[in-house]
Amino acid sequence: MATISDIEVKSVCPKFHCAVELVGRRWTGAILSAMLMGATRFTDIIHAVPGLSDRLLSERLKELEATGIVDRVVHQETPVRIEYRLTEKGHELNDVITALSAWADEWIEAPACGGEASHS
Amino acid sequence: MATISDIEVKSVCPKFHCAVELVGRRWTGAILSAMLMGATRFTDIIHAVPGLSDRLLSERLKELEATGIVDRVVHQETPVRIEYRLTEKGHELNDVITALSAWADEWIEAPACGGEASHS
Repeated sequence: MATISDIEVKSVCPKFHCAVELVGRRWTGAILSAMLMGATRFTDIIHAVPGLSDRLLSERLKELEATGIVDRVVHQETPVRIEYRLTEKGHELNDVITALSAWADEWIEAPACGGEASHS
Repeated sequence: MATISDIEVKSVCPKFHCAVELVGRRWTGAILSAMLMGATRFTDIIHAVPGLSDRLLSERLKELEATGIVDRVVHQETPVRIEYRLTEKGHELNDVITALSAWADEWIEAPACGGEASHS
């Protein structure tokens, strides 16, 4: 016989699972937060995220480009200027980042999280 | 001289960075989503998150207990019954999970995310 608990359990939506694994990837949330605050240049993003290495930022930007969250815009000037811009898909993460910021303000005691090691 | 870009760039809040690294940890988002849907037993959570192993769920539940997001409740019955319950800190992640679910519904094409390998 089905118990109440059996009836309650639903599977986590695969789309949600994809999304959380994508956005939750190490450093990605912080990079998105910096970009939502207006950072568009590689160096601006690096400066906005203490501890982030050039190598990891490159890697994450490539992933975000591949998933349609970021556009890489090359301005044909001298010297060539490259910008990273959030797409509509990227901008629409604003509500998620805002909700998580509010939760963090309320519940996280900085700087107690540790884990600043640079593994990807 | 400061450029507009220099003025715009702010550092990502360390609390936010902690929060995203915590909640974004592999499988943690899916586990929290299952618990917010009402799963409280180990086996219920496992069933709600396809691909999640017993070992990883144990590990994640211990982390969530250590960070005050989950309480482990032992009912002294025969056989002993163990429940995992979201604390207030855990329940307040509901807005984050809801916002991310809405974004995923709109923007993620399931089951295209891949990366179901069981590395932690």
